[in-house]
Amino acid sequence: MATKPSIPKGTRDFSPVEMAKRNYIFDTIRRVYALYGFQQIETPAMENLSTLMGKYGEEGDKLLFKILNSGNFLSGVEAEELNGEGTNKLAARLCEKGLRYDLTVPFARYVVQHREELTMPFKRYQIQPVWRADRPQKGRYREFYQCDADIVGSDSLLNEVELMQIVDTVFSKFGIRVCIKINNRKILTGIAEMIGAADKIVDITVAIDKLDKIGLEKVNEELAAAGLSADAIEQLQPIITMNGSNADKLSTMRQVLSASEIGMKGIEECAFVFDTLQQLGLKNEVEFDLTLARGLNYYTGCIFEVKALDVQIGSITGGGRYDNLTGIFGMPGLSGVGISFGADRIFDVLNQLDLYPKETITGIEVLFVNFGATEAAYCMSLLTKVRATGIRSEIYPDTAKMKKQMAYANAKQVPYVVLVGENEMNEGKLTLKNMTTGEQQLLSVEEMIAVLRS
Amino acid sequence: MATKPSIPKGTRDFSPVEMAKRNYIFDTIRRVYALYGFQQIETPAMENLSTLMGKYGEEGDKLLFKILNSGNFLSGVEAEELNGEGTNKLAARLCEKGLRYDLTVPFARYVVQHREELTMPFKRYQIQPVWRADRPQKGRYREFYQCDADIVGSDSLLNEVELMQIVDTVFSKFGIRVCIKINNRKILTGIAEMIGAADKIVDITVAIDKLDKIGLEKVNEELAAAGLSADAIEQLQPIITMNGSNADKLSTMRQVLSASEIGMKGIEECAFVFDTLQQLGLKNEVEFDLTLARGLNYYTGCIFEVKALDVQIGSITGGGRYDNLTGIFGMPGLSGVGISFGADRIFDVLNQLDLYPKETITGIEVLFVNFGATEAAYCMSLLTKVRATGIRSEIYPDTAKMKKQMAYANAKQVPYVVLVGENEMNEGKLTLKNMTTGEQQLLSVEEMIAVLRS
Repeated sequence: MATKPSIPKGTRDFSPVEMAKRNYIFDTIRRVYALYGFQQIETPAMENLSTLMGKYGEEGDKLLFKILNSGNFLSGVEAEELNGEGTNKLAARLCEKGLRYDLTVPFARYVVQHREELTMPFKRYQIQPVWRADRPQKGRYREFYQCDADIVGSDSLLNEVELMQIVDTVFSKFGIRVCIKINNRKILTGIAEMIGAADKIVDITVAIDKLDKIGLEKVNEELAAAGLSADAIEQLQPIITMNGSNADKLSTMRQVLSASEIGMKGIEECAFVFDTLQQLGLKNEVEFDLTLARGLNYYTGCIFEVKALDVQIGSITGGGRYDNLTGIFGMPGLSGVGISFGADRIFDVLNQLDLYPKETITGIEVLFVNFGATEAAYCMSLLTKVRATGIRSEIYPDTAKMKKQMAYANAKQVPYVVLVGENEMNEGKLTLKNMTTGEQQLLSVEEMIAVLRS
Repeated sequence: MATKPSIPKGTRDFSPVEMAKRNYIFDTIRRVYALYGFQQIETPAMENLSTLMGKYGEEGDKLLFKILNSGNFLSGVEAEELNGEGTNKLAARLCEKGLRYDLTVPFARYVVQHREELTMPFKRYQIQPVWRADRPQKGRYREFYQCDADIVGSDSLLNEVELMQIVDTVFSKFGIRVCIKINNRKILTGIAEMIGAADKIVDITVAIDKLDKIGLEKVNEELAAAGLSADAIEQLQPIITMNGSNADKLSTMRQVLSASEIGMKGIEECAFVFDTLQQLGLKNEVEFDLTLARGLNYYTGCIFEVKALDVQIGSITGGGRYDNLTGIFGMPGLSGVGISFGADRIFDVLNQLDLYPKETITGIEVLFVNFGATEAAYCMSLLTKVRATGIRSEIYPDTAKMKKQMAYANAKQVPYVVLVGENEMNEGKLTLKNMTTGEQQLLSVEEMIAVLRS
């Protein structure tokens, strides 16, 4: 066992400093969710594969981590099944369980399973790791945390408004300047209807998104290359070139989509969200972005994505409304809307911009130096008093050389150390040393507590 | 998909109320760990099987959840390997990774892998789930949380003392009365040496443990049946019948084990821990219990276990000193001592004794009733002010019947609701209803905030 042990690729250990930063992120999000009336739930890391399979597309099924059945896992498996490649189909014969791939499908499963206990609308948040057998690369991990909030059982647009307020509050607390981009699937459907090419909607949003980079002419060339008719491209011109305020853009869309009932519905939904948010006043910018499509095809209404303004990084938060997520588990007709903060990317942004508050790192406030058994016994009873006041503190457990103990204090970035020798013991006092200024004071334990408290 | 979805047996969903209770448990333990200078780390759910296998005995290897390799998992596996039962050996060919079984082995792996970054002594705590393919039964789950703290790189007994102070503090905060039982593996080794039967030490502790129930004569019969010589049984008599204070018992042990160097060392270690704890003063009882053996054979010094006094349940916390845990990963000679709180059993004890503080359940403090679009818009701007003060609050998102909204308020156990109709809007006020007393007050939003704050 001479080789250094390691962990599976794409996974991470978190050191005390990293944990302190991550807890700051999770606690901030958690508190804002609770402020808006969301309640926490947790679901098991393992779900039945029947719950997970078929929910994330064929590619997603491959990326599920599957857990080998316990005991004789070949029992009931025929020899010819084993006579080839290890495929997804065979995997489903050897494995009944898999690790959760996101928090949305387990949440839908939770709602259906516990429907009798729940009062609708049900507002839940959930902060847990998920696992994907993706190829690991910079910023992409096989184990990562999601921080989701969803409301199910209400189709009120006030939910969309509140989720945007949550986004605004969370990023204001972090000190990260963001742009909140909003679109609506119904608008995209309306556009597809209008030009008679429902299957081209992704090509269209991708092409429009390039306008700033490649110019109108090239955008139109790309649309033609994607198979759109000259007529359809002509109809798209006002959309591609629209600009101005959100209200201006929505006004353009109203004209273009006037014949599409669903398109107009999407526009009115967006208009309500923008108007209400404007009345309430957000700290961050909100932008109607027609090119926002979001990959997951269960979205049916408003969709949103958040971009950091001061760091080059992908979307750091996203979400949207879905009208039939629980339908796959036999409970149709339940509308929901949700949001997911990307904790790992937020961690990177906070690091890059150096935005962690100083008090995030909550190590000990004072270290008692250990000069020997008698002094240590004296210090232990002082420590009991200090800790009773809630001050995080410790004694160096061994009677080591002063230099080693001071190196320990520095490594832990301790602001104060306590020195107790014969003099201090005779006087019933202690010496408190400020590690930043080097200043030393002879104090009673009560005086020391007062200094640390101030 | 008509059948109700379910979760794998032995796993659990946690509802908002259960989460609030669990967070109370974890936060209490976490704060006390931090108070004593322990720092949090986290390790991945998945470890390489090479890290986990062989660390928990043959039975433990079977209880590891193994993760099927991604892609073609049969690649490189010969046909004849598949030509029989699905054994542990074949599993290791199909799976490179497994779910962590406890927090101790991943911690040892962490220390060795990150040795260059760590300053010794290293005090870490870790609160994460672990997974075991055990047969599920009442109170035993396949996914459960461990809450561990360990110090490595120090052999000072002050660490043992502080861990006992932590136990005392945590259970005092919970309001659970406990007995802390302490023994020392060196004492057990000394006894085995003395009677020349090292392999009989478990039989001996089990038999002695029954003294109260079956009496001395039967204990001696059991010892004989276990294969101990008449001479050995004779030598054990003072130990079996010893009683009195911890000091009395240690005094008896000193006489009996005077010829055993290792036994005397164990006694002195215990004596130091008991004496120091007595000087510092604990709220709970500490007992020298010779029958305490603890199953894990990596312990080498003090071992401890905690029993609840007012509930019939197994040990709710345990731990001990180990001298060579990192040796298996190529880093010998590092002594450590640790403790593990059993969160699931503590959850059960707190439930049985109904000891959760009222403020544990942190739902919303006020619900705004929704009488229509205009009233809701007015309420949304009030809500923004209320939330800015940190008061957890929400508006019922839909314009539903009053009865339905009140049922929602009751289900969420909301202490106050706000009613806003035409009158309130005209006056720029709101009606606050106390859900316990039924009392209603017409207030400005500032006055309402003051009421909720008081």
